[in-house]
Amino acid sequence: MDTKKCTAEVWCASNRMVTDNKTSWIAGAHLERFTAAALTRVGLPPADADRVAALMAEADLQGSDGHGIIRLPQYIKRIQAGGINVRPNIHVIEERAAMAVVDGDNGMGHLVVSRAVDLAIEKARSAGVAWVGTRASNHAGPASLYVRMPVAHDMIGLYFAVGNANHLPPWGGMEMLLSTNPIAAGIPAGDEPPVVLDMATTVAAYGKVKAKAKRGEPMPEGWMIDRQGRPLTDPKRAHEGFLMPIGGHKGYGLALIVGLLAGTLQGAAMGRDVVDFNADHVTPTNTGQAILVIDLAAFGGAGPFKAAVDTLVRDIRDSERLPGVERIWLPGEQSHGRRAEYARTGVPVASALVDELDQLAARLGIVPLRPQVS
Amino acid sequence: MDTKKCTAEVWCASNRMVTDNKTSWIAGAHLERFTAAALTRVGLPPADADRVAALMAEADLQGSDGHGIIRLPQYIKRIQAGGINVRPNIHVIEERAAMAVVDGDNGMGHLVVSRAVDLAIEKARSAGVAWVGTRASNHAGPASLYVRMPVAHDMIGLYFAVGNANHLPPWGGMEMLLSTNPIAAGIPAGDEPPVVLDMATTVAAYGKVKAKAKRGEPMPEGWMIDRQGRPLTDPKRAHEGFLMPIGGHKGYGLALIVGLLAGTLQGAAMGRDVVDFNADHVTPTNTGQAILVIDLAAFGGAGPFKAAVDTLVRDIRDSERLPGVERIWLPGEQSHGRRAEYARTGVPVASALVDELDQLAARLGIVPLRPQVS
Repeated sequence: MDTKKCTAEVWCASNRMVTDNKTSWIAGAHLERFTAAALTRVGLPPADADRVAALMAEADLQGSDGHGIIRLPQYIKRIQAGGINVRPNIHVIEERAAMAVVDGDNGMGHLVVSRAVDLAIEKARSAGVAWVGTRASNHAGPASLYVRMPVAHDMIGLYFAVGNANHLPPWGGMEMLLSTNPIAAGIPAGDEPPVVLDMATTVAAYGKVKAKAKRGEPMPEGWMIDRQGRPLTDPKRAHEGFLMPIGGHKGYGLALIVGLLAGTLQGAAMGRDVVDFNADHVTPTNTGQAILVIDLAAFGGAGPFKAAVDTLVRDIRDSERLPGVERIWLPGEQSHGRRAEYARTGVPVASALVDELDQLAARLGIVPLRPQVS
Repeated sequence: MDTKKCTAEVWCASNRMVTDNKTSWIAGAHLERFTAAALTRVGLPPADADRVAALMAEADLQGSDGHGIIRLPQYIKRIQAGGINVRPNIHVIEERAAMAVVDGDNGMGHLVVSRAVDLAIEKARSAGVAWVGTRASNHAGPASLYVRMPVAHDMIGLYFAVGNANHLPPWGGMEMLLSTNPIAAGIPAGDEPPVVLDMATTVAAYGKVKAKAKRGEPMPEGWMIDRQGRPLTDPKRAHEGFLMPIGGHKGYGLALIVGLLAGTLQGAAMGRDVVDFNADHVTPTNTGQAILVIDLAAFGGAGPFKAAVDTLVRDIRDSERLPGVERIWLPGEQSHGRRAEYARTGVPVASALVDELDQLAARLGIVPLRPQVS
């Protein structure tokens, strides 16, 4: 890490990016500005571009490296191909006291899901609990972003989504009719960090496969198998195989249920209707997501609940460990730690990705990520 | 299977039970009457005893053999020890348009959860979605029973429960702070059977371990490990080890979230507060469960949804299979098939269990399961 060569004034002043051979550490705010500039340039209204950029930077800051700036080239490609509506009319099409369905009008998923979460929080405040689902949405980044929103209001968030490409066959099958359909939960705590679970129903999310490919690393056995049922460990051959569900038939069942709740229930794509957004940049994905928000105020108040969570968290963290285990982690605790670390050090981004993003910047005519060294 | 020796008139007339050396096939209605008689004898009002007995027989009929009549001796023991309130005042302690908390007053779990589900169905009919949780409840049998109830009203059911004994340590730990905390979902279909998932967040539910012990069979590797981390396959040594979560840290996270939603949220037991009802028959368990009901009528109507589920089910069932796989199953399809089969053949019950139940019958002074052969 040598910042002495740096001569671009703004860059040096903000110390926004330091680089070694393979990785650049980039300030979250710098990633955010870059992303917003790119999205504005391809037609998003500035306020929408800012909103999406903030959520994408937040994904990188918490270490969800498969869901942050790594996705920008793909988003831009889809927008430029006409596969995303940059001026959507995001609107409610079904509504009752404790539920709504939001039609995203094929807008950026981050905008559609944010709208759904805001509405669910508002409804939960009076009804106690609310479910808001989306249709005609798009990829929205890591689920954990959206369950953290109700947590900030002393509410629990549960999130379900249909993944944007089918990588999972039914148990015993070969046709990829299911996606990695994630489940996420955000649970408020008191003095402890919130408990935040964000898991694909497959052993690994496809974003992690892509990240391995980007870094040139092999996948562990168990992530994928090929069509002969043999372990597949080369992420560059990912298209030849499929992901494995957690717990065998149980993970298959979970992925199916999540897809029915997040997709079918709202009239969004599921099964054979799911568009592979890695291969097809034009067809609207009709992505579905759903958020359930539970207001702790309705359940006897947030105070006693959060105190109970703190106690449980500490009981778990301090409990007896198996030989060789250094620490017992709570779900979300490592992201929480990374969030603090990356706010200080910047987000580590593979230099190959920085190159790709700066080529994108050149094509779009925006200021590149990497400072111009004279 | 020799019914010729049978001379007890009622037995022969109803052909309610046939027996070979190791297994008796017993009519569901016969199990139900026996259970109702036993529960009435220990103090439950007849209507409550009938309700519990019907649900327990239904569990056996659908093949949930860890949750049916096998549990009766334990329930009776707890009731006779004063650990269950046979005349509970089951009542709502918190309520809003889309939620309620039901205090079970330490009554039989089947009664408490049935009440919660009925209330959730009623609330979902107006609010679109409703969450009803329980506290001061007890073990209530298989989760699938309760998600099938909303399905009968064209509603989706999601169910979460805190298990009644901690068998699962946090990932990397040795202290069993978590239970097998199940997740269940019931999804209405049209012409196809409903999709019904009912899964412990451990590789195997503890009821399955007990069933293996009862049948004298070893457990597969992967169900449990001992305190040295070695595979444990002898179900009689189950008390020396602990269950394993599905998908490693993911299953641990799921078990924790389910426990927070089903237990902590309602002020029910979780973590160190969970009473091991295998070892302690007196202390109130303060069991928590939660049901989420989603009314399809609020989401554009049940018709289009159920047609979409039928299509998806058929796409999955008919999709290409891995070499050597005979059939792709949908969640709940095997239970659905067993339900039809056992309605015809009777429920297979291990003869050792029938002996135990008939000793119980003798102690209680009720008519035994096995016909009296002259």
